[in-house]
Amino acid sequence: MTEEKKLSVVFIGSGNVATHLAGAFSGAGHRVVQIYSRSLQNARLLGEKYGATFTDCVDKIYRDADLYLFAVKDDVLPELIRQMPVTSGVWVHTAGSLPLSLFAERGENYGVFYPLQTFTKGRELNFSEIPIFVEGDSTTTEEKMQAIAQTISDNVNLLSSEKRKYLHLAAVFACNFTNHMYALASEIVENQQIPFEVLQPLIAETASKIMQIAPQDAQTGPAVRLDETVMQNHLKLLTDNCERDIYTLLSQNIHIHARRKE
Amino acid sequence: MTEEKKLSVVFIGSGNVATHLAGAFSGAGHRVVQIYSRSLQNARLLGEKYGATFTDCVDKIYRDADLYLFAVKDDVLPELIRQMPVTSGVWVHTAGSLPLSLFAERGENYGVFYPLQTFTKGRELNFSEIPIFVEGDSTTTEEKMQAIAQTISDNVNLLSSEKRKYLHLAAVFACNFTNHMYALASEIVENQQIPFEVLQPLIAETASKIMQIAPQDAQTGPAVRLDETVMQNHLKLLTDNCERDIYTLLSQNIHIHARRKE
Repeated sequence: MTEEKKLSVVFIGSGNVATHLAGAFSGAGHRVVQIYSRSLQNARLLGEKYGATFTDCVDKIYRDADLYLFAVKDDVLPELIRQMPVTSGVWVHTAGSLPLSLFAERGENYGVFYPLQTFTKGRELNFSEIPIFVEGDSTTTEEKMQAIAQTISDNVNLLSSEKRKYLHLAAVFACNFTNHMYALASEIVENQQIPFEVLQPLIAETASKIMQIAPQDAQTGPAVRLDETVMQNHLKLLTDNCERDIYTLLSQNIHIHARRKE
Repeated sequence: MTEEKKLSVVFIGSGNVATHLAGAFSGAGHRVVQIYSRSLQNARLLGEKYGATFTDCVDKIYRDADLYLFAVKDDVLPELIRQMPVTSGVWVHTAGSLPLSLFAERGENYGVFYPLQTFTKGRELNFSEIPIFVEGDSTTTEEKMQAIAQTISDNVNLLSSEKRKYLHLAAVFACNFTNHMYALASEIVENQQIPFEVLQPLIAETASKIMQIAPQDAQTGPAVRLDETVMQNHLKLLTDNCERDIYTLLSQNIHIHARRKE
């Protein structure tokens, strides 16, 4: 992380991403000056934490901040950008799947500030290790965004909207789909009165292993060799049709990938 | 872990599980006396590490050890059990998906010793944290197995063959299927010349989060609310039909689970 001019930051949004980013910006010495949220209660909660004002009214958003950080749900972002008053400073959004061009109709000095992490209420994160992907409407904005991002993370990268779409898709696999595998595993054991905790060392090692070995090379289990006996026995234990389909489809795909490697 | 009489142990098998278990047993003060493997070369490699003899001939397996630990591929285990000479001691296998009854035709004093972990060559593991599930043909054997397992792990549980089948199925989801999500994510980013490393903090946090929050409650992303716009855009990026099916099926299933919770 690098030293940089301290900025005044307005947060548009008060959810998990806004909450974590407000903490990171404040921790880096920037001033969180205002929180806007459709929920005044949430805006107040976050605002009071950082000595910032709060509002649920777009018109009351300050005009003179250095940075406006949009961290709201994807589907409300376009309309919110249209409603925003004219301000100084740079506008950036944090959405992995939305393009830079969302801001294009509102002038210049805008960008994307995409932290690649899953943000959960109540979980502390070490922001310095979180990769941040930035993009800007000009080289000047991009350089500014990089410098700002480097005040909170040691892992800052320039990335185009086009490539960011793929990164966001990959994150769905690496995070949401992975978490769903945990959820299904937990249901299977808990239905047998076996506590989910017994799977945690396995989950930790599986995640840890791929820091050292490529996941394609780390694969084990019955699907690699398409072990029909084990697989048929497993399918008999799954009573939900959708889960049986998941089991079959993933096993087949693991096998296809294993054969490609041969 | 508890103190227990030091045992002489014969390993039947020389793969990842045998290798890791030999290390754990030796580390706990037991004597690894012999390694049997169909590959004499592998038997020798492992045997020499622990000052044990090695053989690729079933007839040469010692008859007087305290424990015979079978860690071979599922499909060769039944035949190997039939071929084994009569010995003293306890016979145990380490297969998650195979029943205790495999040993039934060969007399008494047998059990299962199932360490729930993914074992990879060259990765050091802290065995004391690995859950071990034991089962025996009698209360005496079960008590013996528990005492032995407790010399290498702090997390020893009795579990029936019936329930172990479900545990093994859950492990496929929590480990093999999860690893496949990592593999697919890694392909998606690497096809865009983005290094897989950028996903690692996300993967680590996703795995770490569920130690604190149930995976059902930790789920985020477009599938939870079945966000059609994001999902359609993601599907456009996936060129492989099988991967598109996986994306759709998992997204639908995540949504079903999220609605169940409401």
